[in-house]
Amino acid sequence: MKIGIFGTGMVGRTLAERFIADGHQVMIGTRNIEKTLANTEPDLIGTPPYYQWQENNVTVQLGTFADTANFGEMIFISTFGQVALHAIDLAGIEKFDRKIVIDTTNPLDLSGGIPPSFAGAIGNSLGEQIQRHLPQAQVVKAFNTLSMHIVVNPQLEEGVPVLLLAGNDKEAKVKVEEVAKGWGWKDVIDLGDIGEAFYMEASALLWIRYAFNNASWTHAFSLLRK
Amino acid sequence: MKIGIFGTGMVGRTLAERFIADGHQVMIGTRNIEKTLANTEPDLIGTPPYYQWQENNVTVQLGTFADTANFGEMIFISTFGQVALHAIDLAGIEKFDRKIVIDTTNPLDLSGGIPPSFAGAIGNSLGEQIQRHLPQAQVVKAFNTLSMHIVVNPQLEEGVPVLLLAGNDKEAKVKVEEVAKGWGWKDVIDLGDIGEAFYMEASALLWIRYAFNNASWTHAFSLLRK
Repeated sequence: MKIGIFGTGMVGRTLAERFIADGHQVMIGTRNIEKTLANTEPDLIGTPPYYQWQENNVTVQLGTFADTANFGEMIFISTFGQVALHAIDLAGIEKFDRKIVIDTTNPLDLSGGIPPSFAGAIGNSLGEQIQRHLPQAQVVKAFNTLSMHIVVNPQLEEGVPVLLLAGNDKEAKVKVEEVAKGWGWKDVIDLGDIGEAFYMEASALLWIRYAFNNASWTHAFSLLRK
Repeated sequence: MKIGIFGTGMVGRTLAERFIADGHQVMIGTRNIEKTLANTEPDLIGTPPYYQWQENNVTVQLGTFADTANFGEMIFISTFGQVALHAIDLAGIEKFDRKIVIDTTNPLDLSGGIPPSFAGAIGNSLGEQIQRHLPQAQVVKAFNTLSMHIVVNPQLEEGVPVLLLAGNDKEAKVKVEEVAKGWGWKDVIDLGDIGEAFYMEASALLWIRYAFNNASWTHAFSLLRK
């Protein structure tokens, strides 16, 4: 499968590595290719510059957002939450038509520093905003409540973590679930339509704030049924 | 210990039963004692009328909100979220001074029917509202993200559920943790100050919506650490 990934940060790179390892083709999208490659500084959370990562991942293509939206049969939106719609606009919204768009973003308010606060609003989650912006695409909210290394390799000693999904299109959610099961996910919950993205994003912040406050990035929630 | 509980519904009754079983004294508070006892109808979620429950729980006293706030050394706010501040006002805010006040409420929007939606706002969770309203009390947000029968008996087959706490007063949180450990809780997380109540309330709605959408009331989250 051809996978397009918006966002050159840790989330996009981790997804790219896993898809390449599984034999897929991957293009990562950025606003400005030259600028992305010229950068020699780590990002805010210490992720090394892109060019360094690329040296070890030469089969991952780097393109513009438009290239990447064209390329991908399945497209991940893994930019900062605040710029997700803008990145989509730069690509051209028609390029997403009839494609599965997986939104991994979270609405982070960093104005108060670390840990980030929640910048979302009921009925206006990033998942819902992206679906409204792309009415011809099948948006699935997923993978936003976990460390990415756990997303692509959900093996925990203490139990079986739970993967939450939301979206309006049942078939699209089934396809995302298939991808997740290929990575080892055993417990996948379809929460309902894209409106549930609000609760996933708010819960993600609980997870993220715990992470910063406890310097832990190896934790994940599980759902006990009985 | 003398326990005051605001709210005559399922939450308050389940807490009362457990505290009585453990040898504590309990008063449940209501706006209007006569009206509460005269009611012969089940509530919105099918809880039987109070007088029926009282027949099997004769040692639980029923009082006004003011009586109950006077009585309790530790006070639970377990009314509907929307009326919590009003109930506190009816009691008289000075009656809570230097007491531990445990807020179990959630901001539910029932205008769209079942399942409820989230009616909260960042920086203005019910936990924060109650703490601001009662600056001389030690408010602890707790027990709002679980079925009450699990709260008072956290024995699940599939793993160890996680109990989340938030509040500004460390000592008060330790005391609530002691109560919880007496009920069998093994994994208690202090998320931080009362501002974390926002994330607990939003996460509670994820739990509640899953409950309604799957007709499940026996589920609980656990936090895997590794």
